[in-house]
Amino acid sequence: MNVLLTGGCGYIGSHVAVVLMSAGHRVSIVDNLSNSSRTVVDRISAIVGQSPAFYCGDVGDVELVRSIIRENSIDSVIHLAGFKSVGESVQLPLKYYQNNICGALGLLQAMEAESVSHLVFSSSATIYGDPQYLPVDEAHPQHVINAYGRSKLHIEDMLRDVSAARPSFGVVCLRYFNPVGAHPSGFIGDRPRGIPNNLMPYVVQVASGELERLRVFGGDYPTPDGTGVRDYIHVMDLAEGHVAALNYLSSHSGWHAFNLGTGRGYSVLEMVRAFEAESGQTIPFEITDRRQGDVACSYADIRSAARELNWRATRSLEDMCSSAWAFQRRLSVD
Amino acid sequence: MNVLLTGGCGYIGSHVAVVLMSAGHRVSIVDNLSNSSRTVVDRISAIVGQSPAFYCGDVGDVELVRSIIRENSIDSVIHLAGFKSVGESVQLPLKYYQNNICGALGLLQAMEAESVSHLVFSSSATIYGDPQYLPVDEAHPQHVINAYGRSKLHIEDMLRDVSAARPSFGVVCLRYFNPVGAHPSGFIGDRPRGIPNNLMPYVVQVASGELERLRVFGGDYPTPDGTGVRDYIHVMDLAEGHVAALNYLSSHSGWHAFNLGTGRGYSVLEMVRAFEAESGQTIPFEITDRRQGDVACSYADIRSAARELNWRATRSLEDMCSSAWAFQRRLSVD
Repeated sequence: MNVLLTGGCGYIGSHVAVVLMSAGHRVSIVDNLSNSSRTVVDRISAIVGQSPAFYCGDVGDVELVRSIIRENSIDSVIHLAGFKSVGESVQLPLKYYQNNICGALGLLQAMEAESVSHLVFSSSATIYGDPQYLPVDEAHPQHVINAYGRSKLHIEDMLRDVSAARPSFGVVCLRYFNPVGAHPSGFIGDRPRGIPNNLMPYVVQVASGELERLRVFGGDYPTPDGTGVRDYIHVMDLAEGHVAALNYLSSHSGWHAFNLGTGRGYSVLEMVRAFEAESGQTIPFEITDRRQGDVACSYADIRSAARELNWRATRSLEDMCSSAWAFQRRLSVD
Repeated sequence: MNVLLTGGCGYIGSHVAVVLMSAGHRVSIVDNLSNSSRTVVDRISAIVGQSPAFYCGDVGDVELVRSIIRENSIDSVIHLAGFKSVGESVQLPLKYYQNNICGALGLLQAMEAESVSHLVFSSSATIYGDPQYLPVDEAHPQHVINAYGRSKLHIEDMLRDVSAARPSFGVVCLRYFNPVGAHPSGFIGDRPRGIPNNLMPYVVQVASGELERLRVFGGDYPTPDGTGVRDYIHVMDLAEGHVAALNYLSSHSGWHAFNLGTGRGYSVLEMVRAFEAESGQTIPFEITDRRQGDVACSYADIRSAARELNWRATRSLEDMCSSAWAFQRRLSVD
């Protein structure tokens, strides 16, 4: 397949690119580098031994995207580009809506104009809000409390209408739980700008000495050890889920949504201990107040993805930790 | 007040312009004339004896809107511009989302950049879907089934996030029930392009001989006479509701939503009979199948608008019919 990958220089995008190209697909990346770096393209190329096509620009730029589609005979799109900081979205909702929603709409217009009708969209488990039952399945009520989550939910809704209007259109919304870890090469991984919002990059930077100590937001949740429980999924498993979704679209039209998780949760402290064991580093931490908007416990019902996509996460918590640490150490060497 | 009125050449916009200017406010209209005509500006001017400022352009054009705000010292915005055909929105959802959502986001960016923080937004009772109870109050569950309604709901949601992020921001979402009728002058009114989707313009065009007979969609609804019941509201009452909302914002920040209706419903056949009595014309009609997406009965709980906005619809069904007919007859003369 000839796949257009938006946001392909980001954390998840770079892993999806590697998995796609390793499976023999041709990949064209469009990324405006607003939160990523051009060097990621070189790293992807180093891993797979060939280069993706790369275009620096906005996914909402209809003419640019149309020309990329034509030049590369694109038949499928994986749309990952978008702002992703929950906290920033609360402060700057317009920035998030403008970028995420109008970006998606521009991409969809370009796809329609060029008759490209297969789309995989990066959605998020954040659209479920505070779980009313566990594990969370795809039919769980939706409740978003920030502009980031709402931008994901709104795009899912719009895609439903687009697929109803265009019978040939097929779309899979992948609702990510908590992607962590890195490619085994250590060449690509999660390297957020500024202070990390997510646990694993924070832990890794404490381990390397860049940050002094981990702040654990809340030690009084109704969980076994009092810290929040999440469904961490290895980014390579997640990336393989995208290829499974693309394959699914070769025989399914219409709108579909699947959770991508492992189906089991780990607490913050379990994660910290696993990381310490894998890295041999001690992670000093302090338990502070809960963070607004965080839920106690969330993990995925993964049966639908297993049944429909024939996909399952296979990598362990140990692998998540060791690969994240390998990426960090290589960064320090470079 | 210096009010920016988007979509001011449309059916509702032109009446809002007249009511605002008659109340002594200065009005600047921005309208791209995609579904309206420049001559409406002349008609507004003829009614009130002075001209609104007029700009032909898109509300999503941030630089244009910023310059209009600066040139006219705008302190409040009434945002009515948007596509409004439910049926077309089902066929062309991307067109609706692009125009309505990205238009609103551009307008909001311009407002933020120029520190304009009062907004009245034209929402719709369609966001309630099939009523679960009557009358429908503002807390009624939301359930949209088409892209038009979803574009309204999404914008309401976005406005909630914007107001949470900006304490000075105040917004009133007005959820219209079924606006009908015209200004008593007969100079402005509802003149949709093509075959009307709504009852009153259809009836009026049958009365004038432009259309042969009225098609009544469904005669087997669980209503007294079997035809659908709606909360028709005189467009002049509706327009006055916008001025009440603007006044409300002078002492209220935050996000608010109010129904604009009369609080009582009339069936299609009651409306036809009232129109026949007012116009002296016979309206031939045939009852056909129900139309997809139509509900049996809907009317508004209007207590919240009465209490908070100190506003109430005062005009009668007879006035709705006679003013609509007067507008049609003047059209035929012109």
